[in-house]
Amino acid sequence: MTRGFYIGRFQPYHSGHHALVEQIAEEVDEVVVGIGSAGDSHTARDPFTAGERVMMITKALEALDLTSYVVPIEDLNRNSVWVSHVQSMSPRFDVAYSNNPLVIQLFEEAGVEVRQSKMFNREELKGSEIRERMIAGDAWEPYVPDAVVDVIHEVDGVERIQRVNSVDDAPTE
Amino acid sequence: MTRGFYIGRFQPYHSGHHALVEQIAEEVDEVVVGIGSAGDSHTARDPFTAGERVMMITKALEALDLTSYVVPIEDLNRNSVWVSHVQSMSPRFDVAYSNNPLVIQLFEEAGVEVRQSKMFNREELKGSEIRERMIAGDAWEPYVPDAVVDVIHEVDGVERIQRVNSVDDAPTE
Amino acid sequence: MTRGFYIGRFQPYHSGHHALVEQIAEEVDEVVVGIGSAGDSHTARDPFTAGERVMMITKALEALDLTSYVVPIEDLNRNSVWVSHVQSMSPRFDVAYSNNPLVIQLFEEAGVEVRQSKMFNREELKGSEIRERMIAGDAWEPYVPDAVVDVIHEVDGVERIQRVNSVDDAPTE
Amino acid sequence: MTRGFYIGRFQPYHSGHHALVEQIAEEVDEVVVGIGSAGDSHTARDPFTAGERVMMITKALEALDLTSYVVPIEDLNRNSVWVSHVQSMSPRFDVAYSNNPLVIQLFEEAGVEVRQSKMFNREELKGSEIRERMIAGDAWEPYVPDAVVDVIHEVDGVERIQRVNSVDDAPTE
Amino acid sequence: MTRGFYIGRFQPYHSGHHALVEQIAEEVDEVVVGIGSAGDSHTARDPFTAGERVMMITKALEALDLTSYVVPIEDLNRNSVWVSHVQSMSPRFDVAYSNNPLVIQLFEEAGVEVRQSKMFNREELKGSEIRERMIAGDAWEPYVPDAVVDVIHEVDGVERIQRVNSVDDAPTE
Amino acid sequence: MTRGFYIGRFQPYHSGHHALVEQIAEEVDEVVVGIGSAGDSHTARDPFTAGERVMMITKALEALDLTSYVVPIEDLNRNSVWVSHVQSMSPRFDVAYSNNPLVIQLFEEAGVEVRQSKMFNREELKGSEIRERMIAGDAWEPYVPDAVVDVIHEVDGVERIQRVNSVDDAPTE
Repeated sequence: MTRGFYIGRFQPYHSGHHALVEQIAEEVDEVVVGIGSAGDSHTARDPFTAGERVMMITKALEALDLTSYVVPIEDLNRNSVWVSHVQSMSPRFDVAYSNNPLVIQLFEEAGVEVRQSKMFNREELKGSEIRERMIAGDAWEPYVPDAVVDVIHEVDGVERIQRVNSVDDAPTE
Repeated sequence: MTRGFYIGRFQPYHSGHHALVEQIAEEVDEVVVGIGSAGDSHTARDPFTAGERVMMITKALEALDLTSYVVPIEDLNRNSVWVSHVQSMSPRFDVAYSNNPLVIQLFEEAGVEVRQSKMFNREELKGSEIRERMIAGDAWEPYVPDAVVDVIHEVDGVERIQRVNSVDDAPTE
Repeated sequence: MTRGFYIGRFQPYHSGHHALVEQIAEEVDEVVVGIGSAGDSHTARDPFTAGERVMMITKALEALDLTSYVVPIEDLNRNSVWVSHVQSMSPRFDVAYSNNPLVIQLFEEAGVEVRQSKMFNREELKGSEIRERMIAGDAWEPYVPDAVVDVIHEVDGVERIQRVNSVDDAPTE
Repeated sequence: MTRGFYIGRFQPYHSGHHALVEQIAEEVDEVVVGIGSAGDSHTARDPFTAGERVMMITKALEALDLTSYVVPIEDLNRNSVWVSHVQSMSPRFDVAYSNNPLVIQLFEEAGVEVRQSKMFNREELKGSEIRERMIAGDAWEPYVPDAVVDVIHEVDGVERIQRVNSVDDAPTE
Repeated sequence: MTRGFYIGRFQPYHSGHHALVEQIAEEVDEVVVGIGSAGDSHTARDPFTAGERVMMITKALEALDLTSYVVPIEDLNRNSVWVSHVQSMSPRFDVAYSNNPLVIQLFEEAGVEVRQSKMFNREELKGSEIRERMIAGDAWEPYVPDAVVDVIHEVDGVERIQRVNSVDDAPTE
Repeated sequence: MTRGFYIGRFQPYHSGHHALVEQIAEEVDEVVVGIGSAGDSHTARDPFTAGERVMMITKALEALDLTSYVVPIEDLNRNSVWVSHVQSMSPRFDVAYSNNPLVIQLFEEAGVEVRQSKMFNREELKGSEIRERMIAGDAWEPYVPDAVVDVIHEVDGVERIQRVNSVDDAPTE
């Protein structure tokens, strides 16, 4: 039995992420999806709470026939203990999936196997791109799983990102 | 659609917890299980990591026909923001289940409906009781779901709690 | 112009504290009242939030003809920087009032003048004593200023301390 | 009886802030002034300590016939619990005053009424503008209440901001 | 070349610790002494600051012919990342020395070799015992290296522990 | 007996730092080298862990005939308590050496004597410059003490900085 670990901020969880999980699902028996920067929300860069992202991902994964875990992971702001922190919040895993050079470096220094993953339609399927579409009032729904559209509507996510977009990320100017 | 929230430390997740989740499942459509004190581990009182507890609960819930979320929640050590913190880490919920007077007080001050839940065989099905059994080398397996037995064996949990039992909870004596 | 600093947890602010402030007011031109452990609330030992304590003290001091400042101070949990932390949260002061040996030690190591203060009716005018009375349902109103009675009633303070009294101070048992 | 809450960083408290408090004072019975980012000081953007800002505001409000509270509020760096944190540090309030879109969003999601406030002479009465004047050695005194001029002189505030202006905001370059 | 790691709180560094370092020095080429709970001070259990303990140990080790490192390590209060944290603060080491069951457990789970060490005259050479002697006004000097006597005198350590002994470890009663 | 304190981030410790320590060594009897931002590592700006920097500096100082202390200091992110924090982590010192205006300001407000120090060949002997050389694959070895070259090679430091250089400083994009 092998278990794979895949981490991202998922602001929001989009179809590129989803395609990647499907790919991972073919290589391992179980998948852990780690939600990074779980404590951040209500900013232009991190509009959604951890709980909202848990809901997006769990709903989107229901369609797949796969044992999965969706785990919010708060920042410790200390790269040197990041791998241990992630490991303590997640079921044990055998391989980590990432294309982020820092994530790769940290896992490799800790002796964890890392597999790089093919990216899908990287120009459009990109968190920053999709958030820009929300802010501009453009169509963003085609780029995320249907379940994610529902969650974002339920929490008035588009209105939120449009409002907080005009400020820095602290409540006091 | 209603969603219920149930929080505990689950050190470990035992048959009393499980009976309660089954009961909750009859009242709501979806259940969020919040794992409290997620950052604590390797002590006599909190032997298991959040990830190990995620695994215990997810595996135990697989048997139920229920949409569920299992969410580790780190302590902020500040009762006055605890409800907001829990809400930010969890999918939105309509009702919280608890018998803990502080949890009830905090949710009620925040305007969240709380339902108290029937407890099952409270003398034996109690975390502290089961941990004592592990430490003493007595049989603990009858008091937890089978899936939990597997997880605890996989992580050498009994050996761990026996070893850390002899110290205070900090690495420097 | 001299300014005095007086710190306590004020759970709740009682007539002994108040008599002390009146005494300090005769020695200095302005008084800063620092509310310690400002982040703690909803426990048997620390039932009231910082904001509730700010209200108690401000209302009680209105009767005095005195320029005063009421400043909540969150714990940093590090004795060695405690004086600097207090000084950064407070208007500059010339003398600190305390009978707590640790507070005296820390201020004196930092070169701040400390004056010990006469205590008033210490058997009855004691936070722990008054909280016990609230929990037991005994009369506590005679031991605090009238303004404090109002605040505690307004926030249902007695009901709160009675409910949280039965638990440890963390939401997860 | 209604109580209004008004939050800012107040680096420094200037005549625009003051005009706003005067306006609020006409609508409510009591005002709470919350000092945000209370832990920040000694930078070009946040030159003054919380205690210095407490003094500025308290002194400036003495002229008004108004029950007021001046409460430093340290950052928790977590937008999702910000409202609860503010509420725990402040006397209970009925309405919040703000023009900051994030503050408005957070209070509204929490069900708190927000009133937007008229701004006064926004080109000149702006913290960043006044700090620039201090750094450049230009006249800044006309833009703040007299009491604030006194406090800034007492703490050698202009010399401080000029010196720290040349560095990033951490002591180690 | 091998490097050994030895951690303790060293409140204070006594002759039992010193005998142990001498023993370790015979087995490895270089020794790292980690000072745990570096942020704690001014309590009956942790009277000395990290800096004072750095000085005690560095001075005591000067007599030995040994390349050594003395590193204060602040608590993260999270056992699951403790080994990574220690490793990030210390030069790389090959073997850890400890008799503390939790330390042994954490290092072994992380794959670090641990050697248990002989204890010397454990009834008398014990931090708690020596602190009790200081508090009682009994002779404590025979139980610590001469260099440590000098440091404790220089910082008025005995007077400090006697004064803070009468309080709990927080500045607000 | 006088003791001097010199703080930096030392990413990495280079020949300019070393020349400064040699100069300080002529003015005082003992030197404390404080390693700032001790918790940061694995970024383009802060590639090395505190432990790696402890090793660099200790090895480089071995050549000098000088009693020295090398002390990692974690950030508290609060300028107003920074001096107290530094003092608690360091043996007592009489004079601080710095050219950083914020460090000078903070020490002077706390009443600590500060001496500015001559800088050596500031165009080339600069941390940012040397890190750029590592990233670009240019020669950086001539600008650091030999002992530092060894440490950086031992930890594969150049490969690390080249890999993490392409990302922001958080593990989740």
